[in-house]
Amino acid sequence: MEIKIIERILAANENAAAENRELLDHNHVPALNVMGSPGAGKTSLIERTIALLRDRAPVAVIEGDIATTRDAERVAKLGAPVVQIATGGECHLDAAMVGEALANLDLHSAGVVIIENVGNLVCPAEFDLGEHRKVVVASLPEGDDKIEKYPLIFSIADAVVLNKTDMAGLVDFDIKRFRSELDAINPKAAFFEVSCRTWHGLDEWAEWVAPRAVA
Amino acid sequence: MEIKIIERILAANENAAAENRELLDHNHVPALNVMGSPGAGKTSLIERTIALLRDRAPVAVIEGDIATTRDAERVAKLGAPVVQIATGGECHLDAAMVGEALANLDLHSAGVVIIENVGNLVCPAEFDLGEHRKVVVASLPEGDDKIEKYPLIFSIADAVVLNKTDMAGLVDFDIKRFRSELDAINPKAAFFEVSCRTWHGLDEWAEWVAPRAVA
Repeated sequence: MEIKIIERILAANENAAAENRELLDHNHVPALNVMGSPGAGKTSLIERTIALLRDRAPVAVIEGDIATTRDAERVAKLGAPVVQIATGGECHLDAAMVGEALANLDLHSAGVVIIENVGNLVCPAEFDLGEHRKVVVASLPEGDDKIEKYPLIFSIADAVVLNKTDMAGLVDFDIKRFRSELDAINPKAAFFEVSCRTWHGLDEWAEWVAPRAVA
Repeated sequence: MEIKIIERILAANENAAAENRELLDHNHVPALNVMGSPGAGKTSLIERTIALLRDRAPVAVIEGDIATTRDAERVAKLGAPVVQIATGGECHLDAAMVGEALANLDLHSAGVVIIENVGNLVCPAEFDLGEHRKVVVASLPEGDDKIEKYPLIFSIADAVVLNKTDMAGLVDFDIKRFRSELDAINPKAAFFEVSCRTWHGLDEWAEWVAPRAVA
């Protein structure tokens, strides 16, 4: 009985996700679902992306948090349209929440929608939000052993962004090991080494999010 | 209907947790449930605690992970008895899993049992494992805004351990802000500033885990 109900919940989510994707496609706006541990730097990456894409693909943001509007306030300061979802205890976003948020964004003027999921390396991986691509943000201080310990989220990522590379040398992190474990479970994922603090590597990332039109 | 089933799952967990607590009490062994984000330093804290308490309260460890036995291998190297729970995708430990692990530990020779939960600041907070005290490990690189963003887990903690204090100055983290937000939602929690890398602050922590007998 429990299993049937879980299937029903997931089926309802799939339907809502399909509606979100249809709405986004209708407006020709791609959407990213950005996931990662608390403190990996998801909001910082979004802040930098807003700045880098300002002239070619204006970013609209959906912020998911259990509580507070802190991340939305950070994004709003940069002038980007933003909707906050407060999950009220839920450990992940679902497609219905994102659907409500999308209804409150002006998709005509958006070049890309970035959805910041709840900080959690586990549960968000199981819910399709209607996004086009999934991104996982990891960071050097978290340690280089996370891919095999949290395999689902890394195996379904379209891109993995390794943040805080400015801390190489200050923390023990073997980037080659991390990269080779990612290759083993998800060889097709794009991989970016960045520092949101120093802006290192962010141009390549921005190019992946919204390629420059060829002149 | 979903709500009833969730209540039934939680009630079953409460029963299993009560059994675990009875078994621990019968053996006069206190148990800690150590929670925190991926990479906060839970395993490192346990490694240091094993070393510090070796002569007065031998630590037995239950390691919870979604996949891999890496953390159990780290602990076993120090000679501590350890049982690995692989949750196979589950985002938290539950009391039944811990009950099976306890049955595989020699509680007569243990001075304290430390349970390392899955790296996750959300879901583990909702499940009583039968432990006596809950501990949350946070760390400087995660940022100082986590208490209000993940309020449940910090509000139920008996102790909060702020790790990686050796990185003060390298990352933006206002310890006073963090401490005052903790005081606001959970003024009774013990608070420790530690660095598992430099061993700073760990004697006070070890004293909280297993007080030295007065001579």
